[in-house]
Amino acid sequence: MENFNYYTPTKVVFGKGTEEKTGELVREQGCTKVLVHYGSGSVKKSGLLDRIFRSLDEAEIAYVSLGGVVPNPRLSLVYEGIELCRREGVDFILAVGGGSVIDSAKAIGYGTANEGDVWDFYARKRQAEACIPVGVVLTISAAGSEMSDSSVITNEEGWLKRGYSSELSRPKFAVMNPELTMTLPAYQTASGCVDIMMHTMERYFNQNDNMELTDGISEHLLRTVMKSAKILMEEPDNYSARAEVMWAGSLSHNGLTGCGTGGGDWACHQLEHELGGMFDVAHGAGLAAVWGSWARYVMDAHPKRFVQFAVNVMGVQPREDDTVTALKGIEEMEKFYRAVGMPVCVKDMGIELTEEQIVILARKCSFFGSRTIGCIKKLEEQDIAQIYRDAR
Amino acid sequence: MENFNYYTPTKVVFGKGTEEKTGELVREQGCTKVLVHYGSGSVKKSGLLDRIFRSLDEAEIAYVSLGGVVPNPRLSLVYEGIELCRREGVDFILAVGGGSVIDSAKAIGYGTANEGDVWDFYARKRQAEACIPVGVVLTISAAGSEMSDSSVITNEEGWLKRGYSSELSRPKFAVMNPELTMTLPAYQTASGCVDIMMHTMERYFNQNDNMELTDGISEHLLRTVMKSAKILMEEPDNYSARAEVMWAGSLSHNGLTGCGTGGGDWACHQLEHELGGMFDVAHGAGLAAVWGSWARYVMDAHPKRFVQFAVNVMGVQPREDDTVTALKGIEEMEKFYRAVGMPVCVKDMGIELTEEQIVILARKCSFFGSRTIGCIKKLEEQDIAQIYRDAR
Repeated sequence: MENFNYYTPTKVVFGKGTEEKTGELVREQGCTKVLVHYGSGSVKKSGLLDRIFRSLDEAEIAYVSLGGVVPNPRLSLVYEGIELCRREGVDFILAVGGGSVIDSAKAIGYGTANEGDVWDFYARKRQAEACIPVGVVLTISAAGSEMSDSSVITNEEGWLKRGYSSELSRPKFAVMNPELTMTLPAYQTASGCVDIMMHTMERYFNQNDNMELTDGISEHLLRTVMKSAKILMEEPDNYSARAEVMWAGSLSHNGLTGCGTGGGDWACHQLEHELGGMFDVAHGAGLAAVWGSWARYVMDAHPKRFVQFAVNVMGVQPREDDTVTALKGIEEMEKFYRAVGMPVCVKDMGIELTEEQIVILARKCSFFGSRTIGCIKKLEEQDIAQIYRDAR
Repeated sequence: MENFNYYTPTKVVFGKGTEEKTGELVREQGCTKVLVHYGSGSVKKSGLLDRIFRSLDEAEIAYVSLGGVVPNPRLSLVYEGIELCRREGVDFILAVGGGSVIDSAKAIGYGTANEGDVWDFYARKRQAEACIPVGVVLTISAAGSEMSDSSVITNEEGWLKRGYSSELSRPKFAVMNPELTMTLPAYQTASGCVDIMMHTMERYFNQNDNMELTDGISEHLLRTVMKSAKILMEEPDNYSARAEVMWAGSLSHNGLTGCGTGGGDWACHQLEHELGGMFDVAHGAGLAAVWGSWARYVMDAHPKRFVQFAVNVMGVQPREDDTVTALKGIEEMEKFYRAVGMPVCVKDMGIELTEEQIVILARKCSFFGSRTIGCIKKLEEQDIAQIYRDAR
């Protein structure tokens, strides 16, 4: 069992009507000028943004706003946000949205609080020394960015999608009203569920002797999300299922499911980051599209873990041959993906990967041959290319 | 499902050798003078205290120390600590020990940072407005005080044992090395395991529609602690089992197992507090001694929950009659208590409760008839007396 740190200082305010507390929560932080950051017009149309503004007004908090965040949030908007924050003397960023908006807010927070180009942090050239505090009103259960220390930004120059993690950016508070997610289309709901599951599975699959406590929490979280996702395909307004998924989203990525695991694999995230950079696919869908091919490629490196997964998570009856049990678990997961409208290969997303594209993806994913990804099996450039090929 | 807040800002540093980081962790807090607070001589004899002092020296942190905390920590030592902190200009309290030491440290923190008598907070006369920051090096897995917002102090005048909760006192960091718990006697290890389980069970038993996610986490935590406790009765040096129990202790009381439960029952804790005040029994043992009588007395008020507990936690095969299943679950739990040397009634702790004592306990537990305890079933003074009677 590996030593670990666990640090989740985000104050969670969970449940119906909690967005009304936003102003009060910002005031608690002692800040004077807020950037309200959001994505498309949906938070405007739904009236949520107006409710947030009213709550800030009531708490006598000044604010400016910046919308326009897109999935796979762009560096150009981050630059725009940094400029706005500096000009306006912003000292708190309120992200109203899902992972993309929160990640964009964190990047603006780094960029405003540090000198030089914010992309340096994502390009791993240097470490941030500060970050403007970020708060969240969550509208999409998926990324877990509302309690996590990480953010992922896409640089349009070269379409590089890169993540950066630092304790500095953990949100100060997260307002989570499951009702706010009820209007999400089924595809986005399912994609979010896959994202949540993958944050747990990336940690679950590793080469260490995991803590039993962590394993069981992860396995239960996965089962609960799968059950809730299926309910939500039929009843998008089911409050309990929305709440289970929303809370699972935070727990899957706040560190809890990683305690004692030594970090986890994360190869699927790296594989998807390149796909997402090249094709702008929904993150969860992209993860589902590569997972099966990744799992079959690496399972021989730690069959026992794949057997445990098959039995405890997917409810597979253990067979005499571990390989058969493990493969059955992978199949069952793919069956679940299909049941909620998710892809199990890249073609399912309407993309026909060419061999040329595969070579480029593998080049970029391996940082031009300079790194391996994953820990269940360390994957080099040619392994990565083969997984993309298998996932076509 | 109830709305909830979740706030666990304690930085956990978990694993082998982590006590070496204590000085560095205190320095991160920006404090200049530390009170090192501890209990009996065991942390001296083991050399732990010297290692902590060395770590503080290396970090160039000044300190004074105060030992002598006993189980059911006393108000008189808290007063002594407050005086010492004021005299020495202490701005950080480092608790080296288990729940009693941490609770005493929190009380000293309140008393030093606020005017007037610190007992006022525990007597629910007023709220604390500040608390000197507290850090922990944990040596006993039990109370969960290392991540919780609560503390319990015993006032020798009238032997009143009272708890006080405030976000102000959540420890800034908790150093958790499971190896430090290996020298605990079996009885104390088992008592700690019961305490951990009860922190989860108090929240698990309630009248709301719980979150499935929370329920499953709680059930798995309970199963893991029971399994680990049995291992530790045979192999006290088993690192994995010590680690499972230690981490379960924190998770059981940091708020995670209460998410969406609306708070929980907590009657057993109130029942035990009076026993502990009168007889100075080990907290976990006292909880085990009253739990079965409490469970049988209240189960009719929510049989489904007791059935779920019996099936999911105790592995009982569900019977046609819910009462039979529920009772079987209670019996199985008592069987577990016995298996790890814990009492299932007060007599098992060598105490013969008289009717006169029962009346006094019930009087004090009901705050002289002015409150009910519990939520599965609201218990009045005469109910409380009857449970003590059943638990004789």
